[in-house]
Amino acid sequence: MLEINKKMAVKVIHATASPFSDFSSAWPFCSFVMSTKYLLSPCPQIGLNITQICLAKECNEDDIVEELLKLNDDPKVHGIYLHLPRGSITSRVLNTLKPEKDIEGESIDRLGSWGHFHLLMIILNIPTDAPLEGKTVLLVGGEGPLQLAVQCLIERSGMVTLKSHWSSKTLQAQNVVRSCSRWLKGQEYRPWHLRSLKLQPLTPVPSDLEISRAQIPKPVDQLAEEIGLLPEELEAYGRSKAKVRLSVLERLQSQPNGKYILVAGITPTPLGEGKSTVTVGLVQALSAHLKLNSFACLRQPSQGPTFGVKGGAAGGGYAQVIPMEEFNLHLTGDIHAITAANNLVAAAIDARMLHEATQSDKALFNRLVPSVNGVRKFSPIQISRLQRLGIRKTDPASLTPEEINAFVRLDLDPSKITWQRVVDTNDRFLRKITVGQASSEKGQIRETGFDIAVASEIMAILALADSLEDMKNRLARMVVGTSCSGQPITAEDLGVSGALAVLMKDAIKPTLMQTLEGTPVFVHAGPFANIAHGNSSVLADKLALKLVGQDGFVVTEAGFGADIGMEKFFNIKCRASGLRPSVVVLVATVRALKMHGGGPNVSAGAPLPREYTDENLSLVAGGCCSNLKKQIQIAHLFGVPVVVAVNVFKTDTQAEIDLVCQIAKDCGASDALPCNHWAQGGRGSSELAQAVKEAASKPSDFQFLYNTEMPIVEKIRTIAQRVYGADDIELSPEAKSKTDYYHQQGYGSLPICMAKTHLSLSHMPDKKGAPTGFVLPIRDVRASIGAGFIYPLVGTMSTMPGLPTRPCFYDIDLDPVTEEITGLF
Amino acid sequence: MLEINKKMAVKVIHATASPFSDFSSAWPFCSFVMSTKYLLSPCPQIGLNITQICLAKECNEDDIVEELLKLNDDPKVHGIYLHLPRGSITSRVLNTLKPEKDIEGESIDRLGSWGHFHLLMIILNIPTDAPLEGKTVLLVGGEGPLQLAVQCLIERSGMVTLKSHWSSKTLQAQNVVRSCSRWLKGQEYRPWHLRSLKLQPLTPVPSDLEISRAQIPKPVDQLAEEIGLLPEELEAYGRSKAKVRLSVLERLQSQPNGKYILVAGITPTPLGEGKSTVTVGLVQALSAHLKLNSFACLRQPSQGPTFGVKGGAAGGGYAQVIPMEEFNLHLTGDIHAITAANNLVAAAIDARMLHEATQSDKALFNRLVPSVNGVRKFSPIQISRLQRLGIRKTDPASLTPEEINAFVRLDLDPSKITWQRVVDTNDRFLRKITVGQASSEKGQIRETGFDIAVASEIMAILALADSLEDMKNRLARMVVGTSCSGQPITAEDLGVSGALAVLMKDAIKPTLMQTLEGTPVFVHAGPFANIAHGNSSVLADKLALKLVGQDGFVVTEAGFGADIGMEKFFNIKCRASGLRPSVVVLVATVRALKMHGGGPNVSAGAPLPREYTDENLSLVAGGCCSNLKKQIQIAHLFGVPVVVAVNVFKTDTQAEIDLVCQIAKDCGASDALPCNHWAQGGRGSSELAQAVKEAASKPSDFQFLYNTEMPIVEKIRTIAQRVYGADDIELSPEAKSKTDYYHQQGYGSLPICMAKTHLSLSHMPDKKGAPTGFVLPIRDVRASIGAGFIYPLVGTMSTMPGLPTRPCFYDIDLDPVTEEITGLF
Repeated sequence: MLEINKKMAVKVIHATASPFSDFSSAWPFCSFVMSTKYLLSPCPQIGLNITQICLAKECNEDDIVEELLKLNDDPKVHGIYLHLPRGSITSRVLNTLKPEKDIEGESIDRLGSWGHFHLLMIILNIPTDAPLEGKTVLLVGGEGPLQLAVQCLIERSGMVTLKSHWSSKTLQAQNVVRSCSRWLKGQEYRPWHLRSLKLQPLTPVPSDLEISRAQIPKPVDQLAEEIGLLPEELEAYGRSKAKVRLSVLERLQSQPNGKYILVAGITPTPLGEGKSTVTVGLVQALSAHLKLNSFACLRQPSQGPTFGVKGGAAGGGYAQVIPMEEFNLHLTGDIHAITAANNLVAAAIDARMLHEATQSDKALFNRLVPSVNGVRKFSPIQISRLQRLGIRKTDPASLTPEEINAFVRLDLDPSKITWQRVVDTNDRFLRKITVGQASSEKGQIRETGFDIAVASEIMAILALADSLEDMKNRLARMVVGTSCSGQPITAEDLGVSGALAVLMKDAIKPTLMQTLEGTPVFVHAGPFANIAHGNSSVLADKLALKLVGQDGFVVTEAGFGADIGMEKFFNIKCRASGLRPSVVVLVATVRALKMHGGGPNVSAGAPLPREYTDENLSLVAGGCCSNLKKQIQIAHLFGVPVVVAVNVFKTDTQAEIDLVCQIAKDCGASDALPCNHWAQGGRGSSELAQAVKEAASKPSDFQFLYNTEMPIVEKIRTIAQRVYGADDIELSPEAKSKTDYYHQQGYGSLPICMAKTHLSLSHMPDKKGAPTGFVLPIRDVRASIGAGFIYPLVGTMSTMPGLPTRPCFYDIDLDPVTEEITGLF
Repeated sequence: MLEINKKMAVKVIHATASPFSDFSSAWPFCSFVMSTKYLLSPCPQIGLNITQICLAKECNEDDIVEELLKLNDDPKVHGIYLHLPRGSITSRVLNTLKPEKDIEGESIDRLGSWGHFHLLMIILNIPTDAPLEGKTVLLVGGEGPLQLAVQCLIERSGMVTLKSHWSSKTLQAQNVVRSCSRWLKGQEYRPWHLRSLKLQPLTPVPSDLEISRAQIPKPVDQLAEEIGLLPEELEAYGRSKAKVRLSVLERLQSQPNGKYILVAGITPTPLGEGKSTVTVGLVQALSAHLKLNSFACLRQPSQGPTFGVKGGAAGGGYAQVIPMEEFNLHLTGDIHAITAANNLVAAAIDARMLHEATQSDKALFNRLVPSVNGVRKFSPIQISRLQRLGIRKTDPASLTPEEINAFVRLDLDPSKITWQRVVDTNDRFLRKITVGQASSEKGQIRETGFDIAVASEIMAILALADSLEDMKNRLARMVVGTSCSGQPITAEDLGVSGALAVLMKDAIKPTLMQTLEGTPVFVHAGPFANIAHGNSSVLADKLALKLVGQDGFVVTEAGFGADIGMEKFFNIKCRASGLRPSVVVLVATVRALKMHGGGPNVSAGAPLPREYTDENLSLVAGGCCSNLKKQIQIAHLFGVPVVVAVNVFKTDTQAEIDLVCQIAKDCGASDALPCNHWAQGGRGSSELAQAVKEAASKPSDFQFLYNTEMPIVEKIRTIAQRVYGADDIELSPEAKSKTDYYHQQGYGSLPICMAKTHLSLSHMPDKKGAPTGFVLPIRDVRASIGAGFIYPLVGTMSTMPGLPTRPCFYDIDLDPVTEEITGLF
């Protein structure tokens, strides 16, 4: 019960050479105080790390204030004790010291007004040097780590502690257990005191941007405080968004996780069926209406679609993340950081090939390992490369000519470079290009291309990384191509992996924003859902699960239909994170169900055929009994209960909605309900929220679909047959040889990330419902070694969208006086 | 004296239907109050904008708090009056209301502890309805805009005001003039109470990164408060950097500017002579040692050199901007925003050419002006294009086929597209590329290239823009290429200019950081110094000049040698901003002077010849009497006094330094001094700071070198002859025809931005000293119409650096536990 976090730290500031000598004088309320040396010296044993900061004797108020400001802001410091001459403890010094970190007598003067904790001890019946065993200690008042620490060490000395509030009239009657558990509870779960923002939905529903702009978000530091973040855990980016430091995970490591809810969808029409709005509406309902701690974890959208044809991705109607323009534009720069990191790798590849082509081994070696002030040594990155080459030397002079050759020549095969450059713009003319045509590049021309930034492997890594160290290791492992002798060449071989980690050091922190109703949202990472896994980040989910606490809910979203996004969420993301989902919310629309039931083609830009606007129960039933049923079954393959959410459109009839809910329940869904978040905000999703809460309270029995130790081909076959409903798979000769190559290189036990169309359960986009009797063709197999998956290509995947004749940007404008944006959606 | 800012605003929150009816009850200290309706109704006449916010009758505490939080944060609201039932004014409501904005009686209860202003009036001898003319009004206590407003309107009514502090015992004796001027003074200049960070320089001087990391920066909000920024004018990006809103310019518009100091340099060696460190050292000396308000304005560096060969640009030694890793990496994302904006234009160009090549006029028109719910209309951007085409129609249906053809076809000539893509990476293989090679682009292949991001015209615009509106207009005017009929095609023709402004809306706000000694720095914009003007932003300089106040100093830096950077600073940047410099600090090094005096070649990477490490007075004298003398003369051409700063290296001898100072003064420098900021921080530049202060106190007589109405060729000739010392210029045929074309297009009166080597006053990098007897060849002439200058090319300018065999990134690493970066410099 009294387990102290091993990382807890207290800083003692003093201005004398002999610390602790008059520690007791700092506790004027103590009627009897143990030898403070004795008291504090065992602190390290119980995990309390005490650091002494010695200031110069001539230090002035400014020096003390400066030191305090540093410690106030350091999340690794949990308490500060000012061991200073009385005269130095000025009111400015006291006002600088953060109340939460003030653990000693100085604060007692201010207790009346602030009511924060203090530490005060009375130890009864113990002469200072007498044996302590068996004595009773009354510990009076106080909360926080130092008090716990003291209690702990007293008990280790074989004494018994009694605790009491300092002002209590029945000191002796206090219940130690109750008092301690109160503090522990304070550290653990509590329902947030979340001030929700009121919504007054209008009819007809205004544009997304008008709705977003009409709602003023809470200052992000206020939101952070409401959900239990400490000020030093926050890095604000303007007023309405902030990065959250990963140290929160350490602080709350003993906190039980909340419930983990995945929002997935049936196979969509090309128009999309509203998974993001369902996700946002659901947390608005959970937090603002059911008053349960809840967090949404969303993907950061690419700027390409924002200015292209699709528009933004902050939700829609009365279920949005605000300010939506921040969400859809630069946000906190994570995608820009990915672009910079990705393109640094690309520049390093081509420059390295040029330098290798134009220099001797000796010249390369002299430049790669230069003599600096007469000393030559390998950098840590170079030593890693030597070790991979099996060269266990650290002295550059000791390398043989063969070893030098192996070390300096990556010998990249220009035709086998898999690394592409990226931009976060829909620039179709960069899909296939020739680079190196300037005379300065000496004829080393090469065909390559650009992908959209979110297709970078670095984005997939950001989403799967578990910590800064894990991200750094994954970045180093990324394979960028193959040498002429067939060896994989990594980012670390290029010497660039440290720089990549530096470029990505802020991007790894999730960004906190809020919904229209003022409930918290993490926006973090947004990898492609075909060549990557299409899910937001592991770290955002983990942080959110700690912050909501055991009775709270984290709602995260998987890209594409459940056959792709959800399958990857389970088999790739949950495998990487170790997290286990409680419930799947499966989003369906009457529109998509009619399509699966045999309705005519739906395409973007064309008006919807009448079947979709008039009631048609037989089409609905057809869709429910094929695609919806199959997607529910897929979730059940993993042992997770399903709640079906019918995202209601205004043309849907009650009979249609009732029919969907009825069939969904018949197919094994725990529940099925309509939701009206788009028109009504969280209130419109309250029933869904209630159903999710109930489903999450039941035990689930999660299991992976396959064991990663199975051969690559078997893993692909398992997904194709059990998830997609294929009879079998068929590998092209290229796919077969790549599979063998990856197996031989030791990548055989990575999970599989299928790159398949999301418009059908099969590989044929026009086959709706739940196709059967097909063989899934595997055109090629590729690998993202840093991200940690093999991705078989089923058909051709575009990784660079284009701009239409009239892109969104035609309507996007900025009023230079009001600074208001128009035209985003 | 009582001029009220026309934009001052007061918000009145009330919960009743009849505002002001019991206004008097809110002023319990008034012995007599005028009819409040009468009192406040003329407010708009005197420029006080009163807005009433009506809350619903059933509003609760949360609603009031929410409203207050919005108003607290709105920089356009200067005061808040709570017109609420007593019961609604809870302590939570009072605590929410920002003291600075609380303008009424509620705050009186809190006056004792806070001491902030309040408003209290006694009006003598006036029955409510009696004529006011000639009456005397005693206005008691208070400060701030509402009090001034009241005083103003009283005086407009023909009354005389007397003012007094509310607790004064000699109310009647108060001097109105003194009281008013006290408030006005409070709004104007005050020496900052800047808490400077102590430096304890070590010998030998540690690495830049070690020095930077050893100093913990002040929290940026604290720095902002110290320099007189209001909390709502700041947008923090993490703990140590923040964007500053441009509304500061409006708030301080009546504030006189500080002194404006330019740091320029003599013609440098390829190693650079330390202008940035001199700039930082100078403000450290001015602020932290001379205790004068001072600001440095620096350019944001490209990430290319940081990971390439040159390293960072935050200064060096004990004269740095901290944290240097933030400065050198993403900062607040401005360069990323420029990249995104630049590449959106590029994608729009190629996509548009493809769409025009593959569609009929009618199809293009139908897509560009689509029917939305049966209505077709032009967007504002399209109407601008129509107007440029001379088509004064707004109904799409009324266009003739010829007009439709003109409207839909930009008809870009692929061989005359001047717009390049950019990345912020040293990627030499992108210098010349072929795009559009994928089959989806239907054979529309084209040769083009990438520049480094800071070479984008958008960067030059950011640096020269005067306001958000000015930036938006400049972005719209950017010429991206020429139509087949020879017409310039702009970003607005592409329909993308609004989106560009949206992408750049945050980048326009300068970023506040600090030096090692805790003095303020703006980092903003960093255009190339050859194809652009190489100076930091106009807006950062303007903000800083207001913030330092009339006795303060703003030190800004010009790229390259004075012949280029300073000339452009005067002729381009000062022309755009209207600002006038007080002093030029000309940075010289003994090393560079020896080179100009005939010393051997200096090149990066090679050891310095002995001439540079041993004393050699004759080489020094030679350099002083050629290059240094000429650069001083150039500054005098513009009528600005020069202080020469000798940036001391450890190998310099006292005799060498004395010689430089002596010759500099003989050549007309106001003063010349050695400075040791690199080894000692601000203390090492104190004498320089004193000399700058003295020079700035003398009157200067600034003048431009040329009138922009002169023909383009004459302007080029003037610069070549008077600044560079050329005999004449010689234009290539291409340069001649481009000059004629620009003249004919109406661009003839733009200023000139020479693209010349910085390694010589001439166009020949190996001609050191002050070359004469040469003719400057103009190879080509180009134009940045949005930025607003013509740039003649003298030789070939590389706009994309390359990576060496062993780039800086080999040594750059991140410790995943401490999060400390290593290897940046």
